[in-house]
Amino acid sequence: MHSKNLSEISQIINDELEQFNSQFKKSIWSDTKIVNFIIRYLLKQKGKKIRPLLVILSSKICGDVSDRTYRGATLVELLHTATLVHDDVVDEAETRRGFPSINAVWKNKAAVLIGDYLLAKGLMTAVDGNDFDFLRVITNTVKRMSEGELLQSSKTRKLNNDEETYYRIISDKTASLLSTCCEVGARAVTDDDIKITAMRNFGENLGIAFQIRDDILDYIGKKSIIGKPLGGDIREKKLTLPLIYALKNSSKEKSNEVMKILKMKERKMDVDKVIDFVIQNGGIEYSENAAKEYGEKAKKELLIFPDSDIKSSLLELVDFIIERTK
Amino acid sequence: MHSKNLSEISQIINDELEQFNSQFKKSIWSDTKIVNFIIRYLLKQKGKKIRPLLVILSSKICGDVSDRTYRGATLVELLHTATLVHDDVVDEAETRRGFPSINAVWKNKAAVLIGDYLLAKGLMTAVDGNDFDFLRVITNTVKRMSEGELLQSSKTRKLNNDEETYYRIISDKTASLLSTCCEVGARAVTDDDIKITAMRNFGENLGIAFQIRDDILDYIGKKSIIGKPLGGDIREKKLTLPLIYALKNSSKEKSNEVMKILKMKERKMDVDKVIDFVIQNGGIEYSENAAKEYGEKAKKELLIFPDSDIKSSLLELVDFIIERTK
Repeated sequence: MHSKNLSEISQIINDELEQFNSQFKKSIWSDTKIVNFIIRYLLKQKGKKIRPLLVILSSKICGDVSDRTYRGATLVELLHTATLVHDDVVDEAETRRGFPSINAVWKNKAAVLIGDYLLAKGLMTAVDGNDFDFLRVITNTVKRMSEGELLQSSKTRKLNNDEETYYRIISDKTASLLSTCCEVGARAVTDDDIKITAMRNFGENLGIAFQIRDDILDYIGKKSIIGKPLGGDIREKKLTLPLIYALKNSSKEKSNEVMKILKMKERKMDVDKVIDFVIQNGGIEYSENAAKEYGEKAKKELLIFPDSDIKSSLLELVDFIIERTK
Repeated sequence: MHSKNLSEISQIINDELEQFNSQFKKSIWSDTKIVNFIIRYLLKQKGKKIRPLLVILSSKICGDVSDRTYRGATLVELLHTATLVHDDVVDEAETRRGFPSINAVWKNKAAVLIGDYLLAKGLMTAVDGNDFDFLRVITNTVKRMSEGELLQSSKTRKLNNDEETYYRIISDKTASLLSTCCEVGARAVTDDDIKITAMRNFGENLGIAFQIRDDILDYIGKKSIIGKPLGGDIREKKLTLPLIYALKNSSKEKSNEVMKILKMKERKMDVDKVIDFVIQNGGIEYSENAAKEYGEKAKKELLIFPDSDIKSSLLELVDFIIERTK
């Protein structure tokens, strides 16, 4: 069965998303012209907005949306935007969501500063609303995200990633924020620790599934759909789950051959050969099963909640994330 | 009369500075090896520690140091270190405090992430101590610092800075943090708004004097003392007070000639000629007077406090900052 797409899933909270959008846009502006000039450029790029969606659905499954829900959603989306902009510096990315990245146009200077600006604005949203519980969660998340990215980059240089470290990296760099979205959404409307913990764990498992799917798409996605060329991780010498599995489960001879390619300079690499190697050695299938497994773990966390349209949306979101093609 | 040096001024709070140092070092570590590897490298570089000094003196003039004082000092020093590391990306600096900069050794990737990590750790210090008043002040400061740097970089590209914008830039990018140090130090031990406001204004004026002196040293400092070559601002096409004044107060012909040099590529620039132009047209003297003026404004803010050794140290600190040679 084909899973619902994102706009079908989010239809149930369209009003809330609109309200979020208007608050988000209000929260982002500065008194400094040059800042707004860059912000206007940033706002043209439309993301999937999965994070605010998670905040709102998490509030709704635990109670009802409140002002705190919108502030939480604004906080996480500002933080997410900040990390995307910083990530552009980090990865020397040339395009992001199909647009030239901030740093290609404005250079690293502006990218670092606008990221810091967005992070500060996000935190100020929480400070202004006296949402100190949000600040507790979010500052730890910022720490984990930077640690995860740094760990990844050190493993990338050494080409020695294993499955255990892979999971630690994606938990810190990706799942921590999705987990925070769900926790913040819950905290916005309840102090029931059982509900808060369930939503935090839901987000964590969903986040791991999300990143595994992302890493799969780097091997089997369509350039025209995902908006960037395939094999980016290979070119960056980033060993993700599909490749880690394939390297471990092929003949010594074959995997040595692939390691040789990975050690080459980017322009000399036969990227297609590595992609074929991963597919032929079951790396995609294995990773798809892993993503499914984490998706199931996420779904199980929702068992404590009675059935509802909101719960159905969250369950559909899990399927969407595991099966998405971009 | 020669002003006291920094170690003479800070002698009066040596015990407190030692206590701060040990707390600061404890607060910085991570569970991730690669993060600590970079941190160890960072800790080898010893800064002037003016910011923790300000926090402690500000607490002492308003009451006595407390746990909150040390957390505040840790918070501002972590934030300051974060911005230095981000600044290395920003300015493509090759050395910082005489050491090769983080980004020259670890590249931009690590510099952005370690900066984010340090910022998060600083905020976590305040969150863990329930110092939500600090968070209110500090998040606004992070915002102002990024806005100030962005405004500066936009003016730099256009080579059209004027005195009014110069003051706005240095207030946001530099004075905001020194002001925050003094405000946080005061808030740590008192809720007397008159004292808090006096210390905030003291820090703001001191910060402006500090940055003017910094900009003067780029023209008249000694490379062996300041640890970087003279004329860096000229090479970066950054118009600071000495040059802004000289351009405005020389003949049209002379200033056009200098503007021509500023528009050249870095390696073609006759930097010494611009330095001479600034000196001959009174740019240094004018800026030194401006720094003195802001120093006097800072000192006046302390009139509400009775005389004491601590007050004397703060007054001496003003003189040090205006007259320092590095």
